[in-house]
Amino acid sequence: MKVRWLVDGVRAAAISPLDRGLLYGEGLFETILCGEGRPTLWSEHWRRLAEGCRRLGIALPAESLLRSEIACVAEGLPRAIVRITLCGGVAAERGYGARAETPTRIVCAWPAEPADPGPYRSGVRVRFCRLRLADRPELAGIKHLNRLEQVLARREWRDPRIAEGLLFDSSGALVAATAANVFIVEDGRLLTPALHRCGVAGTVRAFLIRHLPVEVARIPRERLLAAEEIFLSNAVQGIVPVCAVGRKRFRVGPCTRAAMRLLQAAEPLLQPRTDEGED
Amino acid sequence: MKVRWLVDGVRAAAISPLDRGLLYGEGLFETILCGEGRPTLWSEHWRRLAEGCRRLGIALPAESLLRSEIACVAEGLPRAIVRITLCGGVAAERGYGARAETPTRIVCAWPAEPADPGPYRSGVRVRFCRLRLADRPELAGIKHLNRLEQVLARREWRDPRIAEGLLFDSSGALVAATAANVFIVEDGRLLTPALHRCGVAGTVRAFLIRHLPVEVARIPRERLLAAEEIFLSNAVQGIVPVCAVGRKRFRVGPCTRAAMRLLQAAEPLLQPRTDEGED
Repeated sequence: MKVRWLVDGVRAAAISPLDRGLLYGEGLFETILCGEGRPTLWSEHWRRLAEGCRRLGIALPAESLLRSEIACVAEGLPRAIVRITLCGGVAAERGYGARAETPTRIVCAWPAEPADPGPYRSGVRVRFCRLRLADRPELAGIKHLNRLEQVLARREWRDPRIAEGLLFDSSGALVAATAANVFIVEDGRLLTPALHRCGVAGTVRAFLIRHLPVEVARIPRERLLAAEEIFLSNAVQGIVPVCAVGRKRFRVGPCTRAAMRLLQAAEPLLQPRTDEGED
Repeated sequence: MKVRWLVDGVRAAAISPLDRGLLYGEGLFETILCGEGRPTLWSEHWRRLAEGCRRLGIALPAESLLRSEIACVAEGLPRAIVRITLCGGVAAERGYGARAETPTRIVCAWPAEPADPGPYRSGVRVRFCRLRLADRPELAGIKHLNRLEQVLARREWRDPRIAEGLLFDSSGALVAATAANVFIVEDGRLLTPALHRCGVAGTVRAFLIRHLPVEVARIPRERLLAAEEIFLSNAVQGIVPVCAVGRKRFRVGPCTRAAMRLLQAAEPLLQPRTDEGED
């Protein structure tokens, strides 16, 4: 895997073991699909990163600097996954209460294969995770570096035919998949879970809320299973229909297809075109 | 601050930006007070690190290797704070579900000043934190790298006269301070909060439970405030009496002094001797 990166603008540099990103997971990240150095859904990524910096008290780098570093690491790659990581940085003192003047900025590119059209046509299978996401309102919505919950949840299954695991909060309400947001269709309307207690407010989710009538709703397990359609959204795969939750089957329906077409028109790299037999 | 460290045994080496410790906070740490390279309460630190590795699926390094690396970084320092960090390591693939073969091992030493006897004699002032610790039973007790809760809680106050902030869970039960465990004395008996939902099971806490009759109990705010004595424990400062919680004053009493003497006898570096006027 040929990975290219810049640390504070320096090619292939390394990280201090004293960086607060490493000591405490103090920091933020964005994972962005890029084509020839151009990030998809950039305004959504930038908005979330800025909000994360505000909440964690991390200095936000200049937008133009991040854009030029993304272009640099992803140059010549027709399709690349770029991760921006802003770490807390190296503080003068030890301990939770210390702060660094400037964050450490990592911009990293992984070359990506063209998207497989199969899952977009037929949908993917998902399962329920046992792990419940903890309530953490101060951190809800932002993409911070404390991701042990997602790591543990993703380890709950190994079957490669299962694409994702659905995560609920302690009250039994759906939050998200381990690395995607979730939408359901009910009476022809789009619904997605509220994320004020936990979860990450995804960029495709934000795009859809901006462009379609989406109801932010409480979705317990029964309501999910009674849905007409279900789909996942994330910043690397776009919108992917769900064809099964456990043993229960779902169809790839018209509302899912309409959302896919909308994203395809805005970001063709992120959302592959699928030949549709019907609508 | 002259900090010395080894990364996988290499002096002053750096960390890959692809390490899962940095990407997701996948990893563990121990903070240990050392004298001339000898760690205090080693068996407690080792036991917790081993339990953390078991729960996170990280390969535990050989005990002799860690001991020799601690001796190396802390050599010649009469008093040093050593931090062992085990990071998830660099995996071949991206994403939450990937795993690295071997963890990245960081052993780092900060020279420390002799302990100020003042707080041990007179006690320290503490406050209540607004932030509530989230329930995370899978991670409760172990010292993992997802520490944003502690970072945010420690930022709730700047007054240097306040030594610590007390943290409660969502049910209103006391868990710990931001970087210490808490004990209270009630009818002459020692009590400390249960840590099966959240919090870190400290090494001094484990030492005290092993050597004294300690009741692990649910301690709401009112029970804490009605205590006869309160003290904090951590691996760098040992046992420190609390003289005030907000405006409510507490005495440095006989049970606290007895616990301090016990730790002083076992680990004189960790628990400074205090001249006692009474008992």
